[in-house]
Amino acid sequence: MFHDFFTPSVQHALDLVGIFVFAISGALLAVRKNFDVFGMAVLAEITALGGGLLRDLIIGAVPPAAFTDLGYFSMPLVATALVFFLHPHVERIQGAVNVFDAAGLGLFCVTGTTKAYEYGLGLTSSAVLGLATAVGGGVLRDVFANEVPSLLRWDRDLYAVPAIVGASMVALCLRFDSLNALTSTLAVLTAFVLRLLAMRFHWRAPRAWNRRSAAAEEEGAGA
Amino acid sequence: MFHDFFTPSVQHALDLVGIFVFAISGALLAVRKNFDVFGMAVLAEITALGGGLLRDLIIGAVPPAAFTDLGYFSMPLVATALVFFLHPHVERIQGAVNVFDAAGLGLFCVTGTTKAYEYGLGLTSSAVLGLATAVGGGVLRDVFANEVPSLLRWDRDLYAVPAIVGASMVALCLRFDSLNALTSTLAVLTAFVLRLLAMRFHWRAPRAWNRRSAAAEEEGAGA
Amino acid sequence: MFHDFFTPSVQHALDLVGIFVFAISGALLAVRKNFDVFGMAVLAEITALGGGLLRDLIIGAVPPAAFTDLGYFSMPLVATALVFFLHPHVERIQGAVNVFDAAGLGLFCVTGTTKAYEYGLGLTSSAVLGLATAVGGGVLRDVFANEVPSLLRWDRDLYAVPAIVGASMVALCLRFDSLNALTSTLAVLTAFVLRLLAMRFHWRAPRAWNRRSAAAEEEGAGA
Repeated sequence: MFHDFFTPSVQHALDLVGIFVFAISGALLAVRKNFDVFGMAVLAEITALGGGLLRDLIIGAVPPAAFTDLGYFSMPLVATALVFFLHPHVERIQGAVNVFDAAGLGLFCVTGTTKAYEYGLGLTSSAVLGLATAVGGGVLRDVFANEVPSLLRWDRDLYAVPAIVGASMVALCLRFDSLNALTSTLAVLTAFVLRLLAMRFHWRAPRAWNRRSAAAEEEGAGA
Repeated sequence: MFHDFFTPSVQHALDLVGIFVFAISGALLAVRKNFDVFGMAVLAEITALGGGLLRDLIIGAVPPAAFTDLGYFSMPLVATALVFFLHPHVERIQGAVNVFDAAGLGLFCVTGTTKAYEYGLGLTSSAVLGLATAVGGGVLRDVFANEVPSLLRWDRDLYAVPAIVGASMVALCLRFDSLNALTSTLAVLTAFVLRLLAMRFHWRAPRAWNRRSAAAEEEGAGA
Repeated sequence: MFHDFFTPSVQHALDLVGIFVFAISGALLAVRKNFDVFGMAVLAEITALGGGLLRDLIIGAVPPAAFTDLGYFSMPLVATALVFFLHPHVERIQGAVNVFDAAGLGLFCVTGTTKAYEYGLGLTSSAVLGLATAVGGGVLRDVFANEVPSLLRWDRDLYAVPAIVGASMVALCLRFDSLNALTSTLAVLTAFVLRLLAMRFHWRAPRAWNRRSAAAEEEGAGA
């Protein structure tokens, strides 16, 4: 109902794909953490729906889409079943999973920004919520699994930047009244390709300047 | 005001009992984690009210019941005082605490499902929120205490399943327009008894198939 | 718009100062945890805006102030830039940072309580939300950084108590219809000075009575 730049059915299908791949990453972490099948399902649901849920609570879209569309809720269960029975095979195609995850990232930063704007938020706030939609689920996944969020770690390839670029492109298009199927697709693709390049070339973000490495790392380990 | 299948005063008394026992489990974990008395109170409040708070934010029931009923807020403080002065004795009756916790689980999955449905959510979403009401506080307790959520771990007795069964029974009754004091009580008792049996016979849920145990567990420990 | 006991511009300037110093503490923890610059920004935003965001979701003030006022969102980025380039110097003036943090604590417990009351909550609930506004960001900071929340630990100087006192003073003034610029300032100063004294004299809160230390601490470490 919100995104007339894609036909609703295309939009919905893309949403389900994004939810599915995010759920796969949640279920895989659950297997690595030695959780049981219910832990897998809970972590898959949190990873897949957490970002959008947070966005919907903030913009006042209650009940959130995650609770009004049965498809959104079902996909993580399908992903859980798949990982439950086939996880060594899913692990083996981690590269393919990463590509789909990049697609989900691109898609969610664009649809998240658009939905926030349609609920009356400013351009900057909308872009921030687009970013939160795209990365929020992964952060919640790590918090609930008692891990340091992958998003925050310096030794991981850029993840936030592609989503920031995608969300900012949408905000700029909204500013100049030129958001349509073409520009939206372009924003999705830009974020998607940037994330693929970041993984391929191990692009990383800098840490604080003058970090007195040895001492500080000990401090970090002991904190 | 929502639950005419119990008289309001019975319903309220049952809610307070559920909140109280969940708060006990929060305060006990705080003692084990070496927190001070304020940490105990904070963890008791989060454990007791967190699940319902989450549900109320999602269904748009603001301000949440936790902030409109002083009794809800006071019970965790009573539980904290009790554990503060008597915790070795409370630990000793851990078995009794577990029975009350099972009662809270049964009660909250039923009232959570019913409240969500009364706010206009679908049957499946209502059951999911009933589950979230029942187990959400415990998950938040573990997250805030920096522990791996007990709910997700494979080496714990079934906790989610009894709540899922109870919530599903309510959803089925709602579907066939037969939710009343009797069927509600039956759902509460079913979840309660299932949880007691799970603890008695150490029922556990399976982990992913073909889990290459040794290698994978090392990976999990190092992750 | 809410707080006519301060002129809006004074109120807004004080809010920005509070947000800034909380953001500094988030960015500093991110450096200690070895996060990259985006991790620093995310943790700074969560620390600075998390408490108010939680309060606004609970009282139904959506979209929350954090998403309607660009200044609120920008201050943590400024704090991140400062810590990024100058963190050894910022670490060196930790004492000064702590004083500002105490000021933020005093300010936020007062404005949080007032805002909750203006949204129709009861006196006790308003004071609780004032406390949550003041300490919530710090707790979320620690949860997202995968640390045991500093607020809950017994070996840290009193942090919650000054905020509880400040929030309770506001609630009492509201009860007797005597909240004005003078009494509000007095509540801010009381919380501020109490926190400074707690740091100066290492005031701590007690742990549970009869805590069988050795055994229990091992249990806590192994939990």
